[in-house]
Amino acid sequence: MAALFGGVEGGGTQSRAVLVDADGRIVAEAEGPCTNPWLVGAELCAERIAAMLHEAKRRAGADPTVPLRALGVALSGADGGGAVSALLEQLRRRSPALSHSYSVRSDAAGAMATASEHGGVVLISGTGSNCHVLNPDGTESGCGGWGHMLGDEGSAFWIAHRAVKAVYDSMDNLQPAAHDIAHLRSAMCHYFQISDRKELLPHLYGCFQKAEFAGFCRKVAEGARAGDALCRHVFAQAGQQLARHVIAVLPRVHQSLFQGELGLPIVCVGSVWKSWELLREGFIQTLEGARGGDVPGGFTHFSLLRLRCSSALGGAILGARAVGHAMPMDYGRNTRVFYTHRF
Amino acid sequence: MAALFGGVEGGGTQSRAVLVDADGRIVAEAEGPCTNPWLVGAELCAERIAAMLHEAKRRAGADPTVPLRALGVALSGADGGGAVSALLEQLRRRSPALSHSYSVRSDAAGAMATASEHGGVVLISGTGSNCHVLNPDGTESGCGGWGHMLGDEGSAFWIAHRAVKAVYDSMDNLQPAAHDIAHLRSAMCHYFQISDRKELLPHLYGCFQKAEFAGFCRKVAEGARAGDALCRHVFAQAGQQLARHVIAVLPRVHQSLFQGELGLPIVCVGSVWKSWELLREGFIQTLEGARGGDVPGGFTHFSLLRLRCSSALGGAILGARAVGHAMPMDYGRNTRVFYTHRF
Repeated sequence: MAALFGGVEGGGTQSRAVLVDADGRIVAEAEGPCTNPWLVGAELCAERIAAMLHEAKRRAGADPTVPLRALGVALSGADGGGAVSALLEQLRRRSPALSHSYSVRSDAAGAMATASEHGGVVLISGTGSNCHVLNPDGTESGCGGWGHMLGDEGSAFWIAHRAVKAVYDSMDNLQPAAHDIAHLRSAMCHYFQISDRKELLPHLYGCFQKAEFAGFCRKVAEGARAGDALCRHVFAQAGQQLARHVIAVLPRVHQSLFQGELGLPIVCVGSVWKSWELLREGFIQTLEGARGGDVPGGFTHFSLLRLRCSSALGGAILGARAVGHAMPMDYGRNTRVFYTHRF
Repeated sequence: MAALFGGVEGGGTQSRAVLVDADGRIVAEAEGPCTNPWLVGAELCAERIAAMLHEAKRRAGADPTVPLRALGVALSGADGGGAVSALLEQLRRRSPALSHSYSVRSDAAGAMATASEHGGVVLISGTGSNCHVLNPDGTESGCGGWGHMLGDEGSAFWIAHRAVKAVYDSMDNLQPAAHDIAHLRSAMCHYFQISDRKELLPHLYGCFQKAEFAGFCRKVAEGARAGDALCRHVFAQAGQQLARHVIAVLPRVHQSLFQGELGLPIVCVGSVWKSWELLREGFIQTLEGARGGDVPGGFTHFSLLRLRCSSALGGAILGARAVGHAMPMDYGRNTRVFYTHRF
């Protein structure tokens, strides 16, 4: 079999690996659990990445002893610093025969490489959240992405947390909820299988699993779709938070990115975007409200794009680029515009 | 030696044990680290409690094999539920010869038992925060106390977190800080011994130690005293948050507690109260602002009291009460009024 390139998309809840041939065709895929190095540590992260790629090789009928030409890993929680170098070291040490070359990039870089060669904004709202601008000149700049202790605004974790906090604050008489808490209180007890709110504490401390806690977001979304006013309110706030991330990076967006047919392309990644209709009002109102402030004048319209394939493909593209191979790619097939707004 | 009663005050950063004779005289004390069962687990918590009491017995020259008449433990994080029963079981199993009787109560109950027989409000701001009203009829009701993931507003953790978050949000352009971040940014790098804010992440995730993180509050207090506007702002917000806790419990305060000479007695526990002058403006303004709303009409004045001894003494009083011994106590000696306000 001809040389294969590997790509991995790593998230806080699930991950995906692809094998791609030199012409950019996906030949096999595999899935795995969380590979955020901050959440699981570099060692387990490297182990899970290797396991997914071994499985993908098996599915492709590829010789497991032949190293990949290059591996590109795009991970949530890999924005440089110690986590990346620790992971690279683990990958090279534990799996020296996995690939001839290894590169580790942020989840945002992987998503952008999947969507376009020209750059744009990546706005991630999955288990966690962050926003990155990737400019045509290769510069990258971000907002957020600091995890649930310092950020994650507008993410599934944040939505789950805000919903739970609204229930607690209302019951404590600390802060009246914007709307009746009855539905959320009952949904919370059901999701976490508790009868008293004290029993939630192990889910937040001793036995805290970010993905499990963030999974409550799905129940908030269900409540919102069923018309519960407090659930709708929390999602509207999440839309505002996500828009604030875009506003934060606008001054760092290269002028040329405003000028395409789509306006500023914003690649929306993560499962919270499945609830776009719940986020929309808060998102648009916040962007409308920011116009006339410090927002660049070139920001006249924007489009929200969803990826039609895993950004593990972008990981493979970046991995190939790192060894000098420009992978042929029909980017139009990789994305779908789901919303365009003109101010 | 005559029968001894043991008391323990357990906090998120440090703990204290006392041995008291039947007449309420403290005969020995000992200190130890965090004994919050949510933070260290029931097993380690029980081990640390036993170790402090053994040390206190040694200092008192008491026979280590003779059990205490009763032990009363007043712990942050012990507001009922699974943590209390798990701790009781560990205490009885690991140290059956420690005491004839064991009782575990909240930190608030321990503080109140130290300050008065009649009840009042306990407002704790140490590593974490919470507020409890203990009524003359024995009823107890609280606000907050859910730990750093769901509450702790106005605590040292909260102050440290708000300060760090202000720096991050300003650098991200997500939210302009109320004042210049230069001092806090530099203090943060110095306290956590980091040169780049990415390096803070292990302090918040993999190596998170609540007490270590909350310890940054001291640096914020130093900055505030040196006149840094942003540090002062964060403390003013903490004062507001603490006042909101009092407002939350006011409807549950028994009418008689408003009618004493001091007005509503609020026992202030925890090291954040050492910075009362930094909290004061936000605290008073928030209470003033709430008047005329749902606040009970009887709330015409209040006094803030500080304990002059460890609420481990209150733990011992509660432990003695649990075995039918009403410990003689001059409560006036145990407290000091540091602020009185009349609306």
